Amino acid sequence: MADFLTSQSEDFSKWYNEIVQKADLADYSPVRGSMVIKPYGYTLWEHIKEALDSRFKATGHVNAYFPLFIPMSFLEKEAEHVEGFSPELAVVTVGGGKELEEPLVVRPTSETIIGHMYAKWIQSYRDLPVLINQWANVVRWEMRTRLFLRTMEFLWQEGHTAHATKAEAVEETMRMLEVYTDFAVNEAAIPVIPGRKSESEKFAGAVASYTIEGMMKDGKALQSGTSHFLGQNFARAFDIQFLDERNELQYAWTTSWGVSTRMVGAVVMTHGDDQGLVLPPRLAPIQVVIVPIWRKEAERERVFAEAELLARRLREAGIRVHLDERGELSPGWKFNDWEMRGVPVRVELGPRDVEQGTVMLARRDQPGRAGKRSVALEGAVEAIQELLVEVQAAILQRALDFREAHTWDVETYADFRSAIEAGFARAWWCGDAECEATIKEETKATVRCIPLEQPGGQGKCVRCGAEAAEIAVFGRAY
Amino acid sequence: MADFLTSQSEDFSKWYNEIVQKADLADYSPVRGSMVIKPYGYTLWEHIKEALDSRFKATGHVNAYFPLFIPMSFLEKEAEHVEGFSPELAVVTVGGGKELEEPLVVRPTSETIIGHMYAKWIQSYRDLPVLINQWANVVRWEMRTRLFLRTMEFLWQEGHTAHATKAEAVEETMRMLEVYTDFAVNEAAIPVIPGRKSESEKFAGAVASYTIEGMMKDGKALQSGTSHFLGQNFARAFDIQFLDERNELQYAWTTSWGVSTRMVGAVVMTHGDDQGLVLPPRLAPIQVVIVPIWRKEAERERVFAEAELLARRLREAGIRVHLDERGELSPGWKFNDWEMRGVPVRVELGPRDVEQGTVMLARRDQPGRAGKRSVALEGAVEAIQELLVEVQAAILQRALDFREAHTWDVETYADFRSAIEAGFARAWWCGDAECEATIKEETKATVRCIPLEQPGGQGKCVRCGAEAAEIAVFGRAY
Repeated sequence: MADFLTSQSEDFSKWYNEIVQKADLADYSPVRGSMVIKPYGYTLWEHIKEALDSRFKATGHVNAYFPLFIPMSFLEKEAEHVEGFSPELAVVTVGGGKELEEPLVVRPTSETIIGHMYAKWIQSYRDLPVLINQWANVVRWEMRTRLFLRTMEFLWQEGHTAHATKAEAVEETMRMLEVYTDFAVNEAAIPVIPGRKSESEKFAGAVASYTIEGMMKDGKALQSGTSHFLGQNFARAFDIQFLDERNELQYAWTTSWGVSTRMVGAVVMTHGDDQGLVLPPRLAPIQVVIVPIWRKEAERERVFAEAELLARRLREAGIRVHLDERGELSPGWKFNDWEMRGVPVRVELGPRDVEQGTVMLARRDQPGRAGKRSVALEGAVEAIQELLVEVQAAILQRALDFREAHTWDVETYADFRSAIEAGFARAWWCGDAECEATIKEETKATVRCIPLEQPGGQGKCVRCGAEAAEIAVFGRAY
Repeated sequence: MADFLTSQSEDFSKWYNEIVQKADLADYSPVRGSMVIKPYGYTLWEHIKEALDSRFKATGHVNAYFPLFIPMSFLEKEAEHVEGFSPELAVVTVGGGKELEEPLVVRPTSETIIGHMYAKWIQSYRDLPVLINQWANVVRWEMRTRLFLRTMEFLWQEGHTAHATKAEAVEETMRMLEVYTDFAVNEAAIPVIPGRKSESEKFAGAVASYTIEGMMKDGKALQSGTSHFLGQNFARAFDIQFLDERNELQYAWTTSWGVSTRMVGAVVMTHGDDQGLVLPPRLAPIQVVIVPIWRKEAERERVFAEAELLARRLREAGIRVHLDERGELSPGWKFNDWEMRGVPVRVELGPRDVEQGTVMLARRDQPGRAGKRSVALEGAVEAIQELLVEVQAAILQRALDFREAHTWDVETYADFRSAIEAGFARAWWCGDAECEATIKEETKATVRCIPLEQPGGQGKCVRCGAEAAEIAVFGRAY
């Protein structure tokens, strides 16, 4: 319960670890760095999956499935790729009781094995584009893990596409960044900043990497999805060639893009408060909880009859509703419990409500009396539908306000340093890798992204004073 | 195309391998024994998943996710379990560049790690039942692999439940067998036989295993789903204990149950014919394909206008429709192509149809003129909806007729032997493991199951003549 929850201001990191477990989102597993996603957390992930998957399909993509194991030699075909991933690999060396001739890597990502298959499938320009996505588990051997944010094994989707021209592949890269932005803003209520990664933060093997960056409630950044333009790097490494319309052999242009279970962590840290989770209605496992209130047995019957009827009406309207039938717990205990779990709307229904034909609606994003209102039972379904839309919009706006209040346009390095202590710094930046490394060393901040939206013009780099053509967003990151 | 497809009567096994690849269901991967599930095959699997998942949820189950890696010591806690699975394990010995202290097994199934977590989560009878399902990949090191039927890695769902009493766990085991039967019959149109496995064919660690067995078109059996009553075996091994209502410590009773991508193979081998796949409408990635027919450009426009309109109307009616817009291919080539891919209903639409306000419907399960009928364009959506229902029922009936025509009630071992050559033998059986081993050695047939439906009474065992209280179904199996 909330009493036992560390407050965000006291220790945000501790708050996070506690609420993830207390709200039954996930639990530690006996395998170091691996977690168990519990039903409540997994249902949230299922809603994230559905919202993304329907967007992928609407933009012409199909799902497929590629092997978990990748021959070690495949990773070595793309020089930057293997360099980036080799410290993080889990390796199978024994199969069916025998030592393997070639070790198998548990996929950290699937560009290589998919590249191999695409080389086999793609012969002619008529076979292009190939627009495939995969929902899968991947493994990266991490030293310091955090539930959802950084785990040895995680669930994700990885899109892998191949195109006849550079322009098409670039367009795809940007389209998927847009899909991710749309998902984050309109489903997860997270006002992310879409932008380009700096050279040093690019995906291993990419020509350019794009990201959506969210600001968590402690002012830190969380990379919440990435879209990579891979140029012809993987096509050359895996020989993905096709005959073009002039019958000339060309290398394909490829992209990849992914969102993972990390998104659950983003939802928790963007909206949660000292009472616990605050879930966006569009993704919440339970959108509405009905808590019946009674003292005498006769009251119980009347209240439950109305509660069950309302639950049925809400269910029929497509709302995910739960009726809390537990008899041994007090209403107050239940209120706290459901607040902790972040259910967007609570319905309180007691004997007096039944008599008067009303119910009390309480919104999670406004705890206490301010978030309560009594509505007629008759029109309750419509009122609740509207309230869910209202809550979704309100938490997005609140997160946006928070980000804006914690983002500063800075010109001096002194201002930069103080901005970084509390949130994001937006500043002209030269783009130089050494300059970036110095900033990181001195402030622990990294270039989160070079936003797609740019003011235009030129300025002086906030750190080194060199000519800068772009504004970058800096922050400390998870 | 069909010309290049080996006929079923010539070599069923070759037919299967060819059609799985030609119809783009799956492809071989560079990792021995692993396959790539291509988009068409994966979409079929998605429909299987949805149909199962909605049934699991309707029976009170929720999804969760447990780690891919299991410490080797966990498997060793249940003696029969480790004995059954140890020859099939893939083992991670290196992580993050270092030799691991304890090797990690890539899960072949998750009873052990889930048992460990349940021991942590379950304290009181109030925590029961736990009704969790997981959609996951598992790895079993197989020597002889077949696309979908037996692969090193496969996708599946594994349900794992814990209960306060034996009766509840037995009830759950049977409920899920019923769910699987209902799915197989009503979605996959496979008339499976639900029954109990013999002692020697039980899951490693189970008290009793139940199965749904289908007959493939070569008369062989395919185990298509299993439901296990695990008694208190795993509860004792992993210490899943709870305080009951009298405050006494008890071991929980557990079950597990699974259906895998093998089901795709079952669909292929139950319904396919010499022209290729025949897919049940309820699971088909494409339920209806519209093939426009034209010669002159003016015709093309009129035909396409009608075809697009019809496609839109079908889509609005919730039907999965594809409009074949390819210009470089003849209608005849396209007909063969879509027949090969098993699309249940083909719509042919030419200039004369447009003039007359009609379309030609061709059903996949009745190739040639017999399966064709012309209907008014106006009522085409309703006619197609009805036809899809008709096709679904017809292929189920055909599979049932086939199975009955290839199943014999036998009393003598001579009759048993000849039945086994062509299909199933149904016979009294003593239940003795040695008798079963002898039958297998002599005939290559195994007890597929002891059907739930029994005639009652007693008989003489078909092999050894001992007293037998049950009828068993025998067959050669995949």
